[in-house]
Amino acid sequence: MQRYFVAAESFGEHTVALEGEDAHHLARVMRMKPGDEIIVSDGEGREAVARLRALAPGRVEADILELRPVSGEPGWSVTVAQSLPKGDKMELVIQKGTEIGAAAFVPFQSERMVVQYDERKEGKRLERWRKIAKEAAEQAHRSVIPAVKPVLSWSGLVASLAQYDAAFFCYEKEGGSSGCGLRDALQAALAQAVDPSALKLLVVVGPEGGFTEREASEAQAAGAVTVGLGKRILRTETAAMVALACLMYESGEMGGK
Amino acid sequence: MQRYFVAAESFGEHTVALEGEDAHHLARVMRMKPGDEIIVSDGEGREAVARLRALAPGRVEADILELRPVSGEPGWSVTVAQSLPKGDKMELVIQKGTEIGAAAFVPFQSERMVVQYDERKEGKRLERWRKIAKEAAEQAHRSVIPAVKPVLSWSGLVASLAQYDAAFFCYEKEGGSSGCGLRDALQAALAQAVDPSALKLLVVVGPEGGFTEREASEAQAAGAVTVGLGKRILRTETAAMVALACLMYESGEMGGK
Repeated sequence: MQRYFVAAESFGEHTVALEGEDAHHLARVMRMKPGDEIIVSDGEGREAVARLRALAPGRVEADILELRPVSGEPGWSVTVAQSLPKGDKMELVIQKGTEIGAAAFVPFQSERMVVQYDERKEGKRLERWRKIAKEAAEQAHRSVIPAVKPVLSWSGLVASLAQYDAAFFCYEKEGGSSGCGLRDALQAALAQAVDPSALKLLVVVGPEGGFTEREASEAQAAGAVTVGLGKRILRTETAAMVALACLMYESGEMGGK
Repeated sequence: MQRYFVAAESFGEHTVALEGEDAHHLARVMRMKPGDEIIVSDGEGREAVARLRALAPGRVEADILELRPVSGEPGWSVTVAQSLPKGDKMELVIQKGTEIGAAAFVPFQSERMVVQYDERKEGKRLERWRKIAKEAAEQAHRSVIPAVKPVLSWSGLVASLAQYDAAFFCYEKEGGSSGCGLRDALQAALAQAVDPSALKLLVVVGPEGGFTEREASEAQAAGAVTVGLGKRILRTETAAMVALACLMYESGEMGGK
């Protein structure tokens, strides 16, 4: 069944309304008719099966048939903090990260960023990134749209580390990883966790130029654990996907628990 | 140190020669001079540190200083069989898969492919895919360039399944996975393995349109295990990356063994 996210205020007790691009997609692209059924979600965990009642240009109304239990969300909350990468790589990180199961994305600035950060463009970029998260969440059948946070400064990111049960700082040096493997770091975090089934984790990924030693020290001092993701050097946009996939695997999303 | 793959025949006992694009990259892009050192690899496991001796347009000669032990290769050999996806997604699968640690790629045809397979274009596409694998292997500091095999028919793919210790067939149905989780399937394969440190695995990923039930049955009859990669629906190009990352994680590439 086709899925759509709607604003929480469009989600009534018995009816739901879709507007704008969603209404267009439903009527023109999918060519749906009154009587057809869809799944609607408010992106914050409320999800329902609804039957189309009235399709007008720009607005579709549907009757809620039944509320559904939220099904597409992982047990662990994994936030991806990604230092701003070049070109459209942030879009790839957000699209793939949303599919794989990220809870949120935190873009941040760091010393060796290759891109020039431009505050004036931030509004437009955030808007675009959030659209990508919404579309990927629909496509992946998620019940929640991962939040894309405004760009943090390096010190802002460091100050946020304490919010998580564990923060994994991906840091590779020429000739091998300088920390322990992700799996060892995760086992240590699990051993200390109050509720291992609901870990709140952060994965911190550097820009193309990597992190400086000073940044690595500051992150460690703030409680982050330096981890490696294997013997190969991953591109910045690949690191987050790999870490996320491994964390989902370890959380029991693919069986084995 | 900058890394280059060279043809096995350019790799002498005491000297090594780089030609064409690599020579151009070295001299013009990296602006290297005689005396500078690089790492050269024949892409089949032979790797050396070499010092540049003579740089001429289109040809660079270097003296081999020392052979190095191969360092960038995972213990498990994981081949990715990917049904031909739309647009340039195969390129993404090859680039990211090479970084993460794939041993080889097998593009194949299946019933619900969205693209029209064109045999006449195969030569050019293979050439391009192999170039992407080479560049990604250099960038990721791998010692081996993953092979990109010619496009297989569906029956050709099915016939090849027996070559592997285990073949994982990624198959999702609306409303959840139809098989067991990847982790459970892997544990079963490990329990049967003669040498668990050197598994030879295949991951089979369908096209945008998914596999048909007939294809799923045929793959199972040929020994493949149907697996799910979590509760979310992954795009075709994401599935291979996720499966690969999880297999690398389980093989001990990120510690924990």
